[in-house]
Amino acid sequence: MKDYKQQLMECHERIAPYVHRTPVMTSRLLDQQAGAQLFFKCENFQRMGAFKMRGATNAILSLSESDRAKGVVTHSSGNMAQAVSLAAQSVGVPAFIVMPENAPQVKKDAVRDYGGQIFEVESTIQARKAKAAEIANNTGASFVHPSNQIEVILGQGTAGLELIQDQPNLDFLLTPIGGGGLVAGCGLAARYFGNGCKCIGGEPMACDDAFRSLASGKIESNASTATVADGLRTVLGDVNFPIIQECVEQIIRVEEEEIVESMRLVWERMKIIIEPSCAVPFAAARRERDSFSGKKVGIVLSGGNVDLGNLPF
Amino acid sequence: MKDYKQQLMECHERIAPYVHRTPVMTSRLLDQQAGAQLFFKCENFQRMGAFKMRGATNAILSLSESDRAKGVVTHSSGNMAQAVSLAAQSVGVPAFIVMPENAPQVKKDAVRDYGGQIFEVESTIQARKAKAAEIANNTGASFVHPSNQIEVILGQGTAGLELIQDQPNLDFLLTPIGGGGLVAGCGLAARYFGNGCKCIGGEPMACDDAFRSLASGKIESNASTATVADGLRTVLGDVNFPIIQECVEQIIRVEEEEIVESMRLVWERMKIIIEPSCAVPFAAARRERDSFSGKKVGIVLSGGNVDLGNLPF
Repeated sequence: MKDYKQQLMECHERIAPYVHRTPVMTSRLLDQQAGAQLFFKCENFQRMGAFKMRGATNAILSLSESDRAKGVVTHSSGNMAQAVSLAAQSVGVPAFIVMPENAPQVKKDAVRDYGGQIFEVESTIQARKAKAAEIANNTGASFVHPSNQIEVILGQGTAGLELIQDQPNLDFLLTPIGGGGLVAGCGLAARYFGNGCKCIGGEPMACDDAFRSLASGKIESNASTATVADGLRTVLGDVNFPIIQECVEQIIRVEEEEIVESMRLVWERMKIIIEPSCAVPFAAARRERDSFSGKKVGIVLSGGNVDLGNLPF
Repeated sequence: MKDYKQQLMECHERIAPYVHRTPVMTSRLLDQQAGAQLFFKCENFQRMGAFKMRGATNAILSLSESDRAKGVVTHSSGNMAQAVSLAAQSVGVPAFIVMPENAPQVKKDAVRDYGGQIFEVESTIQARKAKAAEIANNTGASFVHPSNQIEVILGQGTAGLELIQDQPNLDFLLTPIGGGGLVAGCGLAARYFGNGCKCIGGEPMACDDAFRSLASGKIESNASTATVADGLRTVLGDVNFPIIQECVEQIIRVEEEEIVESMRLVWERMKIIIEPSCAVPFAAARRERDSFSGKKVGIVLSGGNVDLGNLPF
């Protein structure tokens, strides 16, 4: 694997003016629950409500001046649509966002609020990809992938880097695994800056493609996407998978009830709003309690964009 | 009115080892919404989830050594039961808590978790008061009032004091008004340390006893308690009322829909959990937008103890 240490530091400096340095929170009650010392990196407080702001910003800032002027394009029904829109607006470049026509109105509104130009297509991955390619072709806009692009991976990794900077003696760094961008970036941060800190991924049992991919040595897919952790239904990519193989120690799988229970605990005890996906690494720490007993455990709370009208409890 | 400046500073020092210095949060989006610069003092992150921890702690620490040994007693179905229990546990004294027998199990459990000894009575204010008096009589325990006792008022005021210390140029300091302890304490903090900062209370239209009390010059009661802001259904007391008359500039009343909408905005945009009562001063700032236009406005988010199974949206 290439050495990304320098790149990760440069990325962190590059995006700093455009993203929040989010706080690290602790809770005595949750420490007691888990039998470990937990440090929660609150990316739910990040701009647009999720860590994806980091990767999107780095991808845009990594473009040449002339490419930036042509804008960026992505397809997403969720956080990445908002992240690319807001990052592009912050940097001052156009953003073309392909969204499925049945995406919730509130998400379309958020993208428009952030200055993204929306192109609605049929709700299939083929239609979305085709439209994004067409836009890239017509405008010269650069495609930003939500997880499988090194600039995005490095950007997401700065969340882990900051947590390690704030808590230099972490034994473990836990993140959710969806498309693999966040866990790969945090794996790099742990490797280069972690003083022996081990990066571990949390994944829903119902969508355990990453767990199976690490076991088989090739990228596996999911037969179903039936998990409450709606941010974790995607699969790994060819850019982040080799990094995950190198830098991620282990993947812990959790049941749906564990995810909902852990999410509720964070809401009730820490008084902060996290997405179901965020609760997965905390659920992993609770499930494998013995492995983390008495250790210092960093947990990336990846985002806080939930539909308050549709909660799992 | 007596000069409480020195007492307020001493109180702040006294309770510091037992309470969190809660963070002050900001939100560009909510600033835009309100047309002002808002600084939210996050007492929802306070120990046991509410500012009441401050007053309870000060009341207990203000007792003589021999009185402390006999313990403290209060009657409450809500936050004060938890606050007195946890404060007593932290200081190392017994807590006797009178609760209505129909109080939610989760609240009884929380009190027990914090080491409080529960006495269940019929759900009338008479039964509660009688039992508390009986316990005080039998044990020599000191009664802690949730809002109408100077040590409690000063304790609650330290939330406002810290906000003013962190943001010394506030034009306004807004708090909810329920029993009057928090607003009276914050009124004192604004008067002595605010550099001209004006303290304003927010109150539900449906329980506007404080608004009417200031108008009539005597303590008024509420005909109904039909507000979603369940922490604000109580009335002022003879200790806090004169302070409120002296130190609180104005009371702004808000409608139920404004409370719920403001609560939802804070949840969605700031990703933090606040009680309906907390949303009242923010709703007041939004309602009287012109009065706060371009100003620096501190808002005390008083607590975050909500029943997730019973949300108003």
